[in-house]
Amino acid sequence: MKLLFVGFGTVGQGLAELLAEKEDAIFKEYGLEFTVVGISDMLKGSVYNPEGIDLQQALRMLSSGDSISGLSDVAFEEDALSMIQQADADVVLELTYTDLKTGEPATEHIRTALGRGMHVVTSNKGPIALHYNRLQSLAEDKGLKLLFEGTVMSGTPLLNLIRRSLAGSVITEMRGILNGTTNYILTRMEEGMTYEAALKRAQELGYAEAVPDADVLGWDALAKVTILANVVFGQSLKPFDNPCKGITDITAEDIASARQRGKRYKLIGRVWRQGDKVKASVSPEQVDLNHPLANVPGATNALTISTDTLGDITIVGPGAGRRETGYSLLIDLLHVGGRV
Amino acid sequence: MKLLFVGFGTVGQGLAELLAEKEDAIFKEYGLEFTVVGISDMLKGSVYNPEGIDLQQALRMLSSGDSISGLSDVAFEEDALSMIQQADADVVLELTYTDLKTGEPATEHIRTALGRGMHVVTSNKGPIALHYNRLQSLAEDKGLKLLFEGTVMSGTPLLNLIRRSLAGSVITEMRGILNGTTNYILTRMEEGMTYEAALKRAQELGYAEAVPDADVLGWDALAKVTILANVVFGQSLKPFDNPCKGITDITAEDIASARQRGKRYKLIGRVWRQGDKVKASVSPEQVDLNHPLANVPGATNALTISTDTLGDITIVGPGAGRRETGYSLLIDLLHVGGRV
Repeated sequence: MKLLFVGFGTVGQGLAELLAEKEDAIFKEYGLEFTVVGISDMLKGSVYNPEGIDLQQALRMLSSGDSISGLSDVAFEEDALSMIQQADADVVLELTYTDLKTGEPATEHIRTALGRGMHVVTSNKGPIALHYNRLQSLAEDKGLKLLFEGTVMSGTPLLNLIRRSLAGSVITEMRGILNGTTNYILTRMEEGMTYEAALKRAQELGYAEAVPDADVLGWDALAKVTILANVVFGQSLKPFDNPCKGITDITAEDIASARQRGKRYKLIGRVWRQGDKVKASVSPEQVDLNHPLANVPGATNALTISTDTLGDITIVGPGAGRRETGYSLLIDLLHVGGRV
Repeated sequence: MKLLFVGFGTVGQGLAELLAEKEDAIFKEYGLEFTVVGISDMLKGSVYNPEGIDLQQALRMLSSGDSISGLSDVAFEEDALSMIQQADADVVLELTYTDLKTGEPATEHIRTALGRGMHVVTSNKGPIALHYNRLQSLAEDKGLKLLFEGTVMSGTPLLNLIRRSLAGSVITEMRGILNGTTNYILTRMEEGMTYEAALKRAQELGYAEAVPDADVLGWDALAKVTILANVVFGQSLKPFDNPCKGITDITAEDIASARQRGKRYKLIGRVWRQGDKVKASVSPEQVDLNHPLANVPGATNALTISTDTLGDITIVGPGAGRRETGYSLLIDLLHVGGRV
């Protein structure tokens, strides 16, 4: 299976490391071989080689601070879109940055890849939150797969669980902790830190960005509930159509007072059926300490899925991480290969 | 798809109710139609009709206390094994009682069904805990499916999650709450009940049997960890080869003293790799209150799966129930049909 990496930051490198590490095991267990024919990254350079790129060497060059354009004599001078337009690959991995307002340039990358008959695997929330229905129709028309396990709860196989393992169930509600940064901040605040100190610590650890709005105002969680609404409930919601409140107004006093009532503040993303309608929202909620969502600490994510067959199922797992998000792409590749 | 029910107690009836309820939705979504051609139950009667049995009518007769042998003029006078030997069906649902010592008569039922070219779906822990490897080899030789999602955590799709959604991961350990009855008793004891009172309440609610040994001595959890060891780790362990300790020695004082140290007693089933070996055990453990397993109340089950790709993933869901275990069989049938 010939792969094209569009974007080669943390997530792309996480996948590359897993592919190198698990090459033999995947061939043995699933009969699949992966050849990376191209990598295009705005900052780290671009390279195209139909014979295959040595991933280990690419990773070594990056860790020495070198551009991968110097990898063999096959540097590629044009941009990512040009590479997608010219490459001979089976799957395009769309791993550029998330833009929740426009979904670009990722959406154009995906549309072009599908248009040229290539499957797409992505962890980019922008195109899926904003344009899932159109992109999925295009993929279906072409008989192609568009997979994006990593967009919600990173590598925790939530979308797989819903699509396959809960088949035949009717889902009535999903609610959970979908943003690790805010959960980390709330956890530290409960231990006594101020909001400002907890945010600063999250920034030092690389959980939060210098401008932390996408996390602390709830937009990241909002993108994820929108993806769940559109993918699981067949809606065509846009992220900013839904009510969204972040954690910036929560004080240490709020947290202490909730705790006295046996509750804990969590930023909860929620999607639910209300009559014929589907609603989505993000807001801080006081969760009962006995609920599985209450005990989800730090940067971990969790989702409770209410079904007509099993009542509530909760899945708890990582919501971020280089290797974890890399794994979400690997499992999507195994699905594209028809092996699981 | 022609189905034969062997055993028509709570779980069989739970599946029958789901099949009747979801008939149209399953046909619409998955293109599958189910026809029940036979039901054999030691207590509730037996009926065989190649044209199909009216499930709704069978359920109505049972709820009026009638034997289903009176269903139309096709009563079947012989035993379950004879029906398996004579029936023309695609799938045998083995739903008789669990015997953890011998695995019979279920193992003979399954062997006969596979021998005659029929797939098998079961929620019976006996044959899977004792004879999984032999039965699975037989199924593979014949190109048949042997599925048993309901044997561990009831309808909570744990085995599906591991097989499909964690594909490509190496699992190093699984540990969790696999018996709802003991978890219910421990939960009530923490609220102040004595062991005896909590057990009595569990018996009144139908969670515990009159002779509660299989639950309170840990044997039920032991069967489940053995299934996980053999199915997920490819072992051939027998249940009673592994160390097993139940909850009968735990006192209210133990629970209170654990609580003071920020811990909570849970009966933990555990399977883990130790060098080249795989170990399994059941015993009460003091779980840190911040761990997802600590907050699993009442009859709910949960399992934490440690992987090389994602770290820990925890799934929390029902561990028993008529509809829930019925659903485990439905999802296995959808898999047999190749639809998910």
